[in-house]
Amino acid sequence: MGSMRILIKGGKVVNDDFTQEADVYIENGIIQQVGKELMIPGGAKVIDASGKLVLPGGIDTSVHLQESFMNAAIQDDFYSGTKVHNEMETLVREHGVNSFQMYMAYKDMMMLKDSELYQVLQTCKDIGAIARVHAENGELVAESQKEALDLGISGPEGIEISRPEELESEATHRAVTIANRARCPIYLVNVSSASAGDMIAAAKMQGKVVHAETTVAHAVLNGSQYYHQDWAHAAAHVIAPPLRIDPDTPAYLMGLLGNDTLSVVASEHRPFGTKQRALGKDDFTKIPHGVAGVQDRMSVIWERGVVTGKMDENRFVAVTSSNAAKIYNLYPRKGRIIPGADADVVVWDPDATRTISVSTQVQGGDFNLYEGMRCHGVPLVTISRGRLVCENGVFMCAEGSGKFYPQRTFPDFLYKKMVQREKVCLNIGVVFLSKGFTGNSLVSGKDTNAPLRCTVSS
Amino acid sequence: MGSMRILIKGGKVVNDDFTQEADVYIENGIIQQVGKELMIPGGAKVIDASGKLVLPGGIDTSVHLQESFMNAAIQDDFYSGTKVHNEMETLVREHGVNSFQMYMAYKDMMMLKDSELYQVLQTCKDIGAIARVHAENGELVAESQKEALDLGISGPEGIEISRPEELESEATHRAVTIANRARCPIYLVNVSSASAGDMIAAAKMQGKVVHAETTVAHAVLNGSQYYHQDWAHAAAHVIAPPLRIDPDTPAYLMGLLGNDTLSVVASEHRPFGTKQRALGKDDFTKIPHGVAGVQDRMSVIWERGVVTGKMDENRFVAVTSSNAAKIYNLYPRKGRIIPGADADVVVWDPDATRTISVSTQVQGGDFNLYEGMRCHGVPLVTISRGRLVCENGVFMCAEGSGKFYPQRTFPDFLYKKMVQREKVCLNIGVVFLSKGFTGNSLVSGKDTNAPLRCTVSS
Amino acid sequence: MGSMRILIKGGKVVNDDFTQEADVYIENGIIQQVGKELMIPGGAKVIDASGKLVLPGGIDTSVHLQESFMNAAIQDDFYSGTKVHNEMETLVREHGVNSFQMYMAYKDMMMLKDSELYQVLQTCKDIGAIARVHAENGELVAESQKEALDLGISGPEGIEISRPEELESEATHRAVTIANRARCPIYLVNVSSASAGDMIAAAKMQGKVVHAETTVAHAVLNGSQYYHQDWAHAAAHVIAPPLRIDPDTPAYLMGLLGNDTLSVVASEHRPFGTKQRALGKDDFTKIPHGVAGVQDRMSVIWERGVVTGKMDENRFVAVTSSNAAKIYNLYPRKGRIIPGADADVVVWDPDATRTISVSTQVQGGDFNLYEGMRCHGVPLVTISRGRLVCENGVFMCAEGSGKFYPQRTFPDFLYKKMVQREKVCLNIGVVFLSKGFTGNSLVSGKDTNAPLRCTVSS
Amino acid sequence: MGSMRILIKGGKVVNDDFTQEADVYIENGIIQQVGKELMIPGGAKVIDASGKLVLPGGIDTSVHLQESFMNAAIQDDFYSGTKVHNEMETLVREHGVNSFQMYMAYKDMMMLKDSELYQVLQTCKDIGAIARVHAENGELVAESQKEALDLGISGPEGIEISRPEELESEATHRAVTIANRARCPIYLVNVSSASAGDMIAAAKMQGKVVHAETTVAHAVLNGSQYYHQDWAHAAAHVIAPPLRIDPDTPAYLMGLLGNDTLSVVASEHRPFGTKQRALGKDDFTKIPHGVAGVQDRMSVIWERGVVTGKMDENRFVAVTSSNAAKIYNLYPRKGRIIPGADADVVVWDPDATRTISVSTQVQGGDFNLYEGMRCHGVPLVTISRGRLVCENGVFMCAEGSGKFYPQRTFPDFLYKKMVQREKVCLNIGVVFLSKGFTGNSLVSGKDTNAPLRCTVSS
Repeated sequence: MGSMRILIKGGKVVNDDFTQEADVYIENGIIQQVGKELMIPGGAKVIDASGKLVLPGGIDTSVHLQESFMNAAIQDDFYSGTKVHNEMETLVREHGVNSFQMYMAYKDMMMLKDSELYQVLQTCKDIGAIARVHAENGELVAESQKEALDLGISGPEGIEISRPEELESEATHRAVTIANRARCPIYLVNVSSASAGDMIAAAKMQGKVVHAETTVAHAVLNGSQYYHQDWAHAAAHVIAPPLRIDPDTPAYLMGLLGNDTLSVVASEHRPFGTKQRALGKDDFTKIPHGVAGVQDRMSVIWERGVVTGKMDENRFVAVTSSNAAKIYNLYPRKGRIIPGADADVVVWDPDATRTISVSTQVQGGDFNLYEGMRCHGVPLVTISRGRLVCENGVFMCAEGSGKFYPQRTFPDFLYKKMVQREKVCLNIGVVFLSKGFTGNSLVSGKDTNAPLRCTVSS
Repeated sequence: MGSMRILIKGGKVVNDDFTQEADVYIENGIIQQVGKELMIPGGAKVIDASGKLVLPGGIDTSVHLQESFMNAAIQDDFYSGTKVHNEMETLVREHGVNSFQMYMAYKDMMMLKDSELYQVLQTCKDIGAIARVHAENGELVAESQKEALDLGISGPEGIEISRPEELESEATHRAVTIANRARCPIYLVNVSSASAGDMIAAAKMQGKVVHAETTVAHAVLNGSQYYHQDWAHAAAHVIAPPLRIDPDTPAYLMGLLGNDTLSVVASEHRPFGTKQRALGKDDFTKIPHGVAGVQDRMSVIWERGVVTGKMDENRFVAVTSSNAAKIYNLYPRKGRIIPGADADVVVWDPDATRTISVSTQVQGGDFNLYEGMRCHGVPLVTISRGRLVCENGVFMCAEGSGKFYPQRTFPDFLYKKMVQREKVCLNIGVVFLSKGFTGNSLVSGKDTNAPLRCTVSS
Repeated sequence: MGSMRILIKGGKVVNDDFTQEADVYIENGIIQQVGKELMIPGGAKVIDASGKLVLPGGIDTSVHLQESFMNAAIQDDFYSGTKVHNEMETLVREHGVNSFQMYMAYKDMMMLKDSELYQVLQTCKDIGAIARVHAENGELVAESQKEALDLGISGPEGIEISRPEELESEATHRAVTIANRARCPIYLVNVSSASAGDMIAAAKMQGKVVHAETTVAHAVLNGSQYYHQDWAHAAAHVIAPPLRIDPDTPAYLMGLLGNDTLSVVASEHRPFGTKQRALGKDDFTKIPHGVAGVQDRMSVIWERGVVTGKMDENRFVAVTSSNAAKIYNLYPRKGRIIPGADADVVVWDPDATRTISVSTQVQGGDFNLYEGMRCHGVPLVTISRGRLVCENGVFMCAEGSGKFYPQRTFPDFLYKKMVQREKVCLNIGVVFLSKGFTGNSLVSGKDTNAPLRCTVSS
Repeated sequence: MGSMRILIKGGKVVNDDFTQEADVYIENGIIQQVGKELMIPGGAKVIDASGKLVLPGGIDTSVHLQESFMNAAIQDDFYSGTKVHNEMETLVREHGVNSFQMYMAYKDMMMLKDSELYQVLQTCKDIGAIARVHAENGELVAESQKEALDLGISGPEGIEISRPEELESEATHRAVTIANRARCPIYLVNVSSASAGDMIAAAKMQGKVVHAETTVAHAVLNGSQYYHQDWAHAAAHVIAPPLRIDPDTPAYLMGLLGNDTLSVVASEHRPFGTKQRALGKDDFTKIPHGVAGVQDRMSVIWERGVVTGKMDENRFVAVTSSNAAKIYNLYPRKGRIIPGADADVVVWDPDATRTISVSTQVQGGDFNLYEGMRCHGVPLVTISRGRLVCENGVFMCAEGSGKFYPQRTFPDFLYKKMVQREKVCLNIGVVFLSKGFTGNSLVSGKDTNAPLRCTVSS
């Protein structure tokens, strides 16, 4: 299963901006050529992709996160709120970390106060890191958890009751505001509700640099699962923010992936077993957060997103691969099928169907959220850095495994505009501050980009 | 100048719902009759109101507040966050207080954390008090103040720079969310920006019980005042939230008063002199907050609201008088000209004009924010509880002076709906919680009224 | 059953602004006194209203319309689009008509083109009439009807399929725009969808003078009725715009009645029998539009609006009575319980319940839309112009019957602001047009009130 | 100046998704290689692009339009409203036309009624054409023109007065609604106002397939130009819809280009001379619509869009080149710098500045809208299909000149999603229509994609 020469022949290559009929030749873990009538050396394994699509391999930011973020064991450090700045810089410089996760929930654990969040975001901006923010009002969640437990609500439905949608949209609005003040791009994770999505769309309309991801579970399932009579079934859906009780929510979130309000769909893959979840048997607040599902991510999104016409195949590539690569500064080495890119490729049969089942899954866990769901869209061949890890429809290897790359900061996709804004504002800001007010040259109050307002001639 | 018999003859009586030609007869401090061809005893002083309007006396909630709230000296008590509930109850029961003011700004002073705000609002709901909330993100204001001072910005423009609009709209959204969770009506004060106003309108559209007031200064002036070369002039406009730099804001707020997004316009009357403000000569954060202006409130609103067609005379009465009376549970004893009501009456000449000037003002302070403004709408006669306190255009007495009434809690205007919602939800909530989920009877996730969701058949 | 002296004793009088404990004394068809410990002549019939509410009689604008508008037989006249202006004036002056109904739907019948609508609205403004507008895009409805019939859809579901929500919200937006250009207040009727409601709310936020009514059927029922297997059942629900398929719509509309986006709930009472509807047996476009329901209007709204906490009793009075009176320039003679008003009064038991059934109904028609619905809120006594028309829970007489009053134009509720805006703009407009542009004094492009922009100093 | 071998060396190649340091080798009018350390044949002209950007040549859809659309002389044909369908098909098949322009304005000339627009859009969908829609309410514009002329307004300010913003946003909403009913993607042209932009953003949020372009003039200038004392100056700005009086509008539109609400910025280049405009000397309705400006398009957008931080260089490429190529089905042969693409390339100096002046312009016309504007961003070298048409900062050739390509219909960028939606809906729609209603499987009323609602399992 080592690296080899591979020729994918006769398929349609799908990138996030267009689709073309082209062959793909791979060698040394790299895509060497993309086109028709390629001149290639002998001895290559030929994969027939006639009538099939050839996609960039999916990038799952939550798995990615586990590698780069959790392994670096920095959780405890940057929440202390004192030496943060220096330690974050060290992580970036010496450990190749380029993203940090901040929590507005999990009171008395990881929750940041507004001023702390502001300061961490300022640091992120200074060092060019990707600021991942989990947005729920932790103070109010804590109050609601107490109330629910006091009322005798101890089962998994407690997560739905104590973490209502309005606490997510409130925190989303706050996060966007604080990031704007810090002039730092942000990346909201686990967006779970229509109203939080609307907040993000509104922020984008105002020109703020905000990106966001949802998860497969949120874009497909709703909160009625928490009221299932089987405790294990209900508990297997525990994630924060929770799946929403409004049955229209998943389709709405899928629509937001389609219209570019949301950029990425991740799996939030944490394959706890029923035993681990049983820690919360008598207290829903102790059920660990996170659901299984990395394996089925692409098929489920294809079925609910592409088959329904909410997104086309190019947008599918964007939300499962290219956008994550852009945000994490890996693009176009990842997330695009072009010469020179890493050979992460999936040969996809858009017409075949399969039925998801825990009995045939490779990933860990004893439960499958999408059990029994029939999906169009089947990965026939999966190639990871030039190695064939799956063939004939059998999925042999988790995506995203493999060596760790030190990651570059200041991704253009997030920072290019921001840096320019800062530059324009700061230079002139000084003039303004020393020379005083001149009514006509003031940017209107509607320009929310400048904490210290500045004179941009316009 | 004691109480007397007064007949106001020939005018048009303007209440908040309609205007009628009618005479008004006053005796013993009470309006005794309203109508045509009244039968009245002899000896009444007759005021000719031909061609004039007869309005309910203005009610200024911020002056009101000083009487009932500041005198009660409770400021320090309820922010401590420990024995709150009992002390608030005592204030209500023994001191006749029916409103409390909460601050989301003023960090390290009066600022409440979200969980504290939630708890105080729950207490307000339990005792039926009016919850006045000042909404600005105090954590971020503090950060911005530091930054501004570090940059050498020490003048009054610092208030505008360090308390930007987005920190108000953020906190407004948060306040509305927390109040909804606590199932408590709220009353937002000093609404100063278009985006905060939009938040309030959105909350009302969602059925939340939210009312709000702005001030005359915010509805008439903009933040360019802070950049005036004369420090005293600039400092005289210091109020929190600040006047906004966007020159469209005042007209927008006046429009919101016209369309019932905002219910009340107050004066936030605190007539500091230049000396007191000079405490902040070298540090804008030390300039006391609050502006003069109670005396001119009605003329200024008439000029900018009624003359421009943003509101009619009935709506003028609503925002200067009736709505405040309803909110504070004084209606219709206050805020309406009907038999039985307190005789607080203004005879108003809608066509006369006067020019506002510090040189002719009665109220305290050495500065008038509206200096030189020419207003249509002049009070000819002012009657307070049956006493003639002003005649012939000379304003002889501040509005709102007089004896303190113990105030009743649970104003219908705020609480009637809420109490019903609570009743409907709680009863059925228990059934739901014990009987488990039945998909069809669940209120949709869009109904944001129920913290613990409940089955309302619909 | 003639006029008599009536004393309603011990109840709570509910007006749209407050509730008070008071007795009501009626004589000569007029409310003579409202208060406690009244001095009244002997011989009055005493009605015990202890524990009950005393409400202004409901005003049903659609019934009202039939009397004043349909009887006047003007339908054909003003749609011809030629002599309109003069004929409308004649109707107002000589026949006491003060409202006109315009249709944006019903192509090739009553539908007005945009320019015609604009001209009719200008005329309405000139003569001070109430412009009732039915908003659906008639051109597109006609296209969809053809398509549906071509596809073989001939049953009542065709009304739902061919008149989708988006054609209503489109036309609503257009109507609001055209009225704003004509500087004419408008009154939108039969608002049936959430998105049309949102359009109205947005217009109000912009300061436009827009009022709107929905019907009981739209605020209570949804479009699944059209798919009922029994043709007669489905056809009995045919109304335009149709009931909406989205099951959340009725609760949303009720919420809009609660938050003052919608001002009035009417019955759109047209009690066709099944026979009449059978004209459309093979072609849904021939089923006459209109539903039965005047009798149950108040109980149904009480149950779904007041009991659920979406409105309080005062708001209930507003939407069933006072607002219609204000709009039609009948207030406070109608729509308010005060001395001098017409004695239209209902004694209401808020706690009693009844079950609606066709078998017990007085109104015409062989079908009841609300069959089997159990309602809190029962009218115990109904008094119409001083006559007792219903007692002991038996409803003996349709509301609104009685003599025709010539109606006054220029209702303040609609016109006072508009007239002022016109005045302010026109005067200065001339100056502007002759003197040319002065950048600073121009009203911003956001002020949508002035077709010819004008310089309002602000 | 014929085709030659060109090597652009040392620059940064900017595509719409990322920027890379790479050389570009051109031969036979085609980009042959993009990368580092290229192997190229001898004899190539070498252009040093060190420190410079290498961009895809701008694509100007309005110039493009003149070529393909106006030359085809179809204007008169498809507005007649009778034989439309066949003639449009012929134009597509035999003349290689793939876009049609529809007007909702220009009453009694090119204006389509709603039903006609609906039918033309259905035809566009059937043949896969790009439906360009000019959205203004022509009926109301005509009324306003009459009124303005009656009031004696005859100068260029008349265009601003008679075509107010609200008539554009009304028509935009209507166009989007009608296109959605016809299930046809639309492309709105000449978007000129904030409120029209908001309508487009709202449509995208609802998942509708809507794209839109603005013009350089609208994104840079405001309507105060029409009030210039020099008639010729004012008249040179006449375009429909007009430049907006709100001074915030241009920056807002530029922001919408930045956040992907608007996809394309065109020049609407029609270089009428003062003489031609003088036809409207006494009647603004006779001034021909259209402004000069193709030459300066890229510099002006760079200055106001990129330098201000509203968009980065990649987004700049998107709105000036790539998006138009995608919409017109020319991508990636046009709009992207990759091997195999047409060699339309600009070497761009982002730091150099130049001052725009009519005295140095190459394009036609005797007036430059941007006279005196100093722009960063200067094209140093322009290559069109492999020919060097400009060097050393002198612009020698208009963009877009050259041979006419027959154009392909059904661009993926517009149609891929729509075709899928149609497929999903139609198939199941039939089942639904014959089998009747099943409540649970109905798409909610919020899904606005299906004129005939259909059962999409979700």
